[in-house]
Amino acid sequence: MDRLPVDLPTPNNPSPNDAAALQELLGGKFGEMSTLMTYTYQSFNFRGKKRLKPFYDVICSIAGEEYGHIEIVSHAINLLLTGSTKRGHDPSVAPLSGITDMRNTRHFIASAQTALPMDSMGQFWSGENVFSGGNLKLDLLHNFFLECGARSNKMRVYEMTTDPTAREMVSYLLVRGGLHVVAYAKALEYLTGVNVTKLIPTPELSNKAFPETRKFEENGLHRKLYTFSQDDYQSAGIIWNGTHPEDGSPLEVVFGAPEGVPVPELEEEPQLNSPGAEDFDMDMYKDIAKKLGIKL
Amino acid sequence: MDRLPVDLPTPNNPSPNDAAALQELLGGKFGEMSTLMTYTYQSFNFRGKKRLKPFYDVICSIAGEEYGHIEIVSHAINLLLTGSTKRGHDPSVAPLSGITDMRNTRHFIASAQTALPMDSMGQFWSGENVFSGGNLKLDLLHNFFLECGARSNKMRVYEMTTDPTAREMVSYLLVRGGLHVVAYAKALEYLTGVNVTKLIPTPELSNKAFPETRKFEENGLHRKLYTFSQDDYQSAGIIWNGTHPEDGSPLEVVFGAPEGVPVPELEEEPQLNSPGAEDFDMDMYKDIAKKLGIKL
Amino acid sequence: MDRLPVDLPTPNNPSPNDAAALQELLGGKFGEMSTLMTYTYQSFNFRGKKRLKPFYDVICSIAGEEYGHIEIVSHAINLLLTGSTKRGHDPSVAPLSGITDMRNTRHFIASAQTALPMDSMGQFWSGENVFSGGNLKLDLLHNFFLECGARSNKMRVYEMTTDPTAREMVSYLLVRGGLHVVAYAKALEYLTGVNVTKLIPTPELSNKAFPETRKFEENGLHRKLYTFSQDDYQSAGIIWNGTHPEDGSPLEVVFGAPEGVPVPELEEEPQLNSPGAEDFDMDMYKDIAKKLGIKL
Amino acid sequence: MDRLPVDLPTPNNPSPNDAAALQELLGGKFGEMSTLMTYTYQSFNFRGKKRLKPFYDVICSIAGEEYGHIEIVSHAINLLLTGSTKRGHDPSVAPLSGITDMRNTRHFIASAQTALPMDSMGQFWSGENVFSGGNLKLDLLHNFFLECGARSNKMRVYEMTTDPTAREMVSYLLVRGGLHVVAYAKALEYLTGVNVTKLIPTPELSNKAFPETRKFEENGLHRKLYTFSQDDYQSAGIIWNGTHPEDGSPLEVVFGAPEGVPVPELEEEPQLNSPGAEDFDMDMYKDIAKKLGIKL
Amino acid sequence: MDRLPVDLPTPNNPSPNDAAALQELLGGKFGEMSTLMTYTYQSFNFRGKKRLKPFYDVICSIAGEEYGHIEIVSHAINLLLTGSTKRGHDPSVAPLSGITDMRNTRHFIASAQTALPMDSMGQFWSGENVFSGGNLKLDLLHNFFLECGARSNKMRVYEMTTDPTAREMVSYLLVRGGLHVVAYAKALEYLTGVNVTKLIPTPELSNKAFPETRKFEENGLHRKLYTFSQDDYQSAGIIWNGTHPEDGSPLEVVFGAPEGVPVPELEEEPQLNSPGAEDFDMDMYKDIAKKLGIKL
Amino acid sequence: MDRLPVDLPTPNNPSPNDAAALQELLGGKFGEMSTLMTYTYQSFNFRGKKRLKPFYDVICSIAGEEYGHIEIVSHAINLLLTGSTKRGHDPSVAPLSGITDMRNTRHFIASAQTALPMDSMGQFWSGENVFSGGNLKLDLLHNFFLECGARSNKMRVYEMTTDPTAREMVSYLLVRGGLHVVAYAKALEYLTGVNVTKLIPTPELSNKAFPETRKFEENGLHRKLYTFSQDDYQSAGIIWNGTHPEDGSPLEVVFGAPEGVPVPELEEEPQLNSPGAEDFDMDMYKDIAKKLGIKL
Repeated sequence: MDRLPVDLPTPNNPSPNDAAALQELLGGKFGEMSTLMTYTYQSFNFRGKKRLKPFYDVICSIAGEEYGHIEIVSHAINLLLTGSTKRGHDPSVAPLSGITDMRNTRHFIASAQTALPMDSMGQFWSGENVFSGGNLKLDLLHNFFLECGARSNKMRVYEMTTDPTAREMVSYLLVRGGLHVVAYAKALEYLTGVNVTKLIPTPELSNKAFPETRKFEENGLHRKLYTFSQDDYQSAGIIWNGTHPEDGSPLEVVFGAPEGVPVPELEEEPQLNSPGAEDFDMDMYKDIAKKLGIKL
Repeated sequence: MDRLPVDLPTPNNPSPNDAAALQELLGGKFGEMSTLMTYTYQSFNFRGKKRLKPFYDVICSIAGEEYGHIEIVSHAINLLLTGSTKRGHDPSVAPLSGITDMRNTRHFIASAQTALPMDSMGQFWSGENVFSGGNLKLDLLHNFFLECGARSNKMRVYEMTTDPTAREMVSYLLVRGGLHVVAYAKALEYLTGVNVTKLIPTPELSNKAFPETRKFEENGLHRKLYTFSQDDYQSAGIIWNGTHPEDGSPLEVVFGAPEGVPVPELEEEPQLNSPGAEDFDMDMYKDIAKKLGIKL
Repeated sequence: MDRLPVDLPTPNNPSPNDAAALQELLGGKFGEMSTLMTYTYQSFNFRGKKRLKPFYDVICSIAGEEYGHIEIVSHAINLLLTGSTKRGHDPSVAPLSGITDMRNTRHFIASAQTALPMDSMGQFWSGENVFSGGNLKLDLLHNFFLECGARSNKMRVYEMTTDPTAREMVSYLLVRGGLHVVAYAKALEYLTGVNVTKLIPTPELSNKAFPETRKFEENGLHRKLYTFSQDDYQSAGIIWNGTHPEDGSPLEVVFGAPEGVPVPELEEEPQLNSPGAEDFDMDMYKDIAKKLGIKL
Repeated sequence: MDRLPVDLPTPNNPSPNDAAALQELLGGKFGEMSTLMTYTYQSFNFRGKKRLKPFYDVICSIAGEEYGHIEIVSHAINLLLTGSTKRGHDPSVAPLSGITDMRNTRHFIASAQTALPMDSMGQFWSGENVFSGGNLKLDLLHNFFLECGARSNKMRVYEMTTDPTAREMVSYLLVRGGLHVVAYAKALEYLTGVNVTKLIPTPELSNKAFPETRKFEENGLHRKLYTFSQDDYQSAGIIWNGTHPEDGSPLEVVFGAPEGVPVPELEEEPQLNSPGAEDFDMDMYKDIAKKLGIKL
Repeated sequence: MDRLPVDLPTPNNPSPNDAAALQELLGGKFGEMSTLMTYTYQSFNFRGKKRLKPFYDVICSIAGEEYGHIEIVSHAINLLLTGSTKRGHDPSVAPLSGITDMRNTRHFIASAQTALPMDSMGQFWSGENVFSGGNLKLDLLHNFFLECGARSNKMRVYEMTTDPTAREMVSYLLVRGGLHVVAYAKALEYLTGVNVTKLIPTPELSNKAFPETRKFEENGLHRKLYTFSQDDYQSAGIIWNGTHPEDGSPLEVVFGAPEGVPVPELEEEPQLNSPGAEDFDMDMYKDIAKKLGIKL
Repeated sequence: MDRLPVDLPTPNNPSPNDAAALQELLGGKFGEMSTLMTYTYQSFNFRGKKRLKPFYDVICSIAGEEYGHIEIVSHAINLLLTGSTKRGHDPSVAPLSGITDMRNTRHFIASAQTALPMDSMGQFWSGENVFSGGNLKLDLLHNFFLECGARSNKMRVYEMTTDPTAREMVSYLLVRGGLHVVAYAKALEYLTGVNVTKLIPTPELSNKAFPETRKFEENGLHRKLYTFSQDDYQSAGIIWNGTHPEDGSPLEVVFGAPEGVPVPELEEEPQLNSPGAEDFDMDMYKDIAKKLGIKL
């Protein structure tokens, strides 16, 4: 699906170093690559899934959402990088001058001012970050910890910047990641009877301290679990019900995916030869598309 | 979507070392994690996507398929590992004896006889394997090479085993990966006019030399490109048309995803405490599901 | 202190592959290097330690014990490796023949049949395994998870072998690591009021299923927390008291360290030139020692 | 033991980038993690320790000291990081602004402005840095080289900063590391008769060129080897005697550990939720401590 | 041979951050270490080399040149680093102050302001970057892609700096690397008949857009393939002939190596104790050299 | 130069596991990649090379030789791997069956039964193994240690196998690496006056204990230092003269390179599609070669 979960404002100013910091939320040990891949592999590897279906369905539902999270962090990074060097075709004017003083040169050499699966130090994400041990209680405990750790990172990255693109994106993640914290806590409670939701929030500061989260919470985004499928994973609703441990609002399971907004168009950066192909004649394919009945 | 692209037979015998070898196709440099993540990031990072939509749509369509590929390799590994140790609850009988002589102990310690994103040497997949340089011609050239390299790996892994689960899965990947080779070759041709499809097959041996591929080819799986969306990515069909360079069959673009088959149920492995939770009362949730109108 | 926490029997037979598997408990993600270093750095990095002294003291006490744990795993590995090749001075008889078929060649090339900080796949331990986030609740939650994960690994490694050295050592770790699980659960309870101890045991199988643990439990090793200092860290006793969640026995804090047993003497392996120095005259230093009043 | 080997002044100004540079001395290839862990594993792995006791005891004595070295580098880093961001509870004022321009974001995301086992580029320490080959002559030669390499790094890091905390700490390490250089040189001499001490100093600049080392040398810290045990490791004194190769002062072995000074209290950093737990009532535990006779 | 392929001007100003960026071209995934080592291993591993000699000879000829490329990138880095700190013998004046704000501290700690095999983020080069799959068509396709990717990196690094040393060196690499692109394209063409040279240039911008390349092209450096041997590898000329795909100039194979220029003398940096050895009496060896008839 | 330093016998039997072990001498921490690259970078980075020319020339001469060492280890590996699977074109007979039980699957997936820059555990060589600190005394001390460590590894790998190819190659390396040990010891002696050569041999066992070394020593290969250049590096002879510390034979410097023997032809392995290109018509190029006067 070619849509983003939330609308990102254009940055006030491009900022390579803010983009470099956001990478932690994408490819860091506690970044969205880790949550996406951990839940994905846990879903592939789930033993006894008939007997324990509600737990399987919760993990699958959240895995389904995480794909949108690597997408939205990537887009925030891309927006912050776009326009951060001098546009043009002549390399001899050193259009990338100044970049050697920035923190992450990979954004300008290995990619055309866009995101890569690495952390805020430019270290690439590793499959070692996936935990899929196969004992359900332990896996859920891990996921609860992972989401709390991820939340801590988001809070700290939020505090590093005043840029609205970054803040909007991080706040969205705080709300949805916050929901994942609750979901795994409730799953553990359902399995063991221990009152794990009372450990929320960890760290102690509430999401409500982050002003940009308000509109998302007003739309109920902190209490709606999406299954990302019309038919599968419905029994997630057996775990995801009752009330939210922080504000008592009613938890709700939604069969399907949120609608989303169009993905932002990224401007060309000719000084990076990106995308290049300047002689390519797009009219040609428009005609063909019309003939073939293809929607562009 | 809780479905696999192809039906995997049960292995003749569990085989930890065959499973260890299959990991190369999952988490190796040329494994499905690399293709999935490379095309995913290229789609996030695409500049000038309106101008060059057919190329964007081809990359997105293939990215959409790769998710199913990490899934199916994982399931083949899981099937080969399931039952490979003595089932039971008593650790003192050393139910895992013999495993210290197997090649990949991670399958038995870090997971409960299931897949992890690592290669055939147990080295974890790294984000460094993602290439997303941002120049379209270079990215397509990379993708063409990556798919040829992946094909070479699949061919060699196929030759290592006579197990039907492994061979069925690898043959499926040969056919679909073979289609991706053609797709990137055609995209390069469309962009540059150079006859890249004539380099196919690389390595020279045809997929037809692998008997299990036949039924897939008979079903047209080597010539149908799926967009994995009803509405988006249709213009992939502008590139994906004409005839197949090897057998001249007509290329076809399908708007949407293949139907798939149910995901295999993985048996419990109590000696690994997987999934554990043996006191959990599944009747309880069945009643609730009925009340809530939830499909199990 | 030149003493081991527990007496290790001599292996029935040297076994390089069992030794290779034990490495997971030393240098794996959930091995003793990770627990030792995590608690060590958390103790260095503790903010507000006056205000929160009992928590600091619990972490320091456990950190103090972990050093003995890397020691005992190393010694078990060393015992299993000692004598595993043909002893002698003549390299031309290929005294290490057969080793090229073993899983971990580092034991025979990078060391003289002894332990190194690596895991069961020969991958070296990394500082990335240290978690020291600085929020107390999150750090304790991490530690509780880490110890549960470590416990799962110990259980699985135990099941791989019938060798008494390996089983004795792993059982000791199960008991003492089990105590650490309880300690971090109680610390979280003390901080938050949530009864985390009810999640114990995770995975669900009790330590009592491992026969070699019995004698350790009979000696109370599952209920005595040592501070490893006469004076410091006493307030660990504020958290560590009451009864054990599994058997209701009384928890006890001991100011100081357990007495321990002498470290095993490792035989020489001349085919590895270890230790070499065969011309060294030890009588010479014995005389000097006598003169200088030095205890040998 | 909850004490530091030397008293560290408070920095003139917090400095994240100086702290980042100091990390080389903690988690770099030649940092204190490498010396600590190398000597620790060499002591575990020592073959023929009865026959070669003085060498074993020298290695153990130095291993004992290195723990204090990772501690003191960590505390210097912590002091330089403490107070480097705006203190407070409100994330919306961007209390960490400016940090995205600093070199090591891990200090602010993965930890609460404190040390981690990584080097000056933020690369984590690896067990690959441990050398424990098992041939005594080769291990001693390695240790002599390692300490000379470490000395070179300390000298260069010293030159990078004028901050008194950093310089005091590095100077202390130069003096004690300098003693380790001499100790391994003397051990090699004792074993082989080659007068390796004449290679000292390597690099050629004397510690006396670093003004802050003077007071330490006046207290004899360059000539006193501690055994860190009253009873064990005494025969280190068989090797450690005679005179210092640089100033001819008498070498002295001390049975036991230096007294040390209290560990600095680290202030809270609420903007990082460190340590959090602000509702925790410390009076409660003070009363309990009194009742239980526990020293706080 | 103690000679460089091209004369490098002295930098206008030393620049540690420009030097840090140049490291990408040395030790990055697409740097000269990768091309050198890939072609070197492909030459060792070539199967059927009699039957396919012209291909073997092309690979060997290019491998021979790459050694000079790691050399010249290293020298450019060294020149940019030389003199970047305060020269002198007194560490107490903090001669390296300011360095903690630079991007790559390894240049100042692990080396004496000189090059190391790492990339622009300070990550070390890995053997994983070597591709030597053994199927000739696939290896050539890889090499063609690798050289195009390397070219993209060079173009972007060029754009980051106005320093003449950096630009001269990168321009030289653009020309010679451009020749390697053509050589692998022609080899593929010779093998398969597909006119791969028409994909040149990738990315689309011509080398002619970089002013410093002109003098090299005027000297024919974009059309002369050297075999780096008088006798071996001559059959490279079977592939390397005809005309250049961009400017139609005649391709030429040269049996042997270009003459080169003397390697720049690197000044001493006493504040880094480099090279030290200040008491060493060079007159002594000059006399001996004369006696032994040795050329200095 | 297309020649090997020594003639390697054909293995008695192909042996993938022996080949896997030999990789330690190629890509291990103490393998030939490490010596080659360390001396190469030290030569690039040498400061004050006019003043200290004999040292520079020794390092360059040895660097020159190390290239031949990575070559010969690679060829030994290749010979041991060649023919280790069933030759043929039909993948369906599982020609690689049995390989999933071998230790290093990379030899069969990432390459066509040939060498890669990795160690005996399949871990890739890293640039982190390069030491180039820039202080001459420290660099020489490092090199002396590195060569002793490398010697220890060679001795142990020798002991693992009775295969004549492996033993011949390792014995050659023992002799030539032994010469490098002496060379760096003598360089240190020349610089400092300390008689480091008396530490030889480390480990204590003499090369003479390895029967295959005898013929090499009889040919003087343990006492001839080659400069690998007619004109450059001659002043290495100022350091390399006098007598050998072990047998008193006269040291000799040779201006130039040893003659060498032809590189072995590697047979094709069609089941790995290596080299493929079976339709390629070699007659065609032979005719062209004749016309162009090109030596094949």
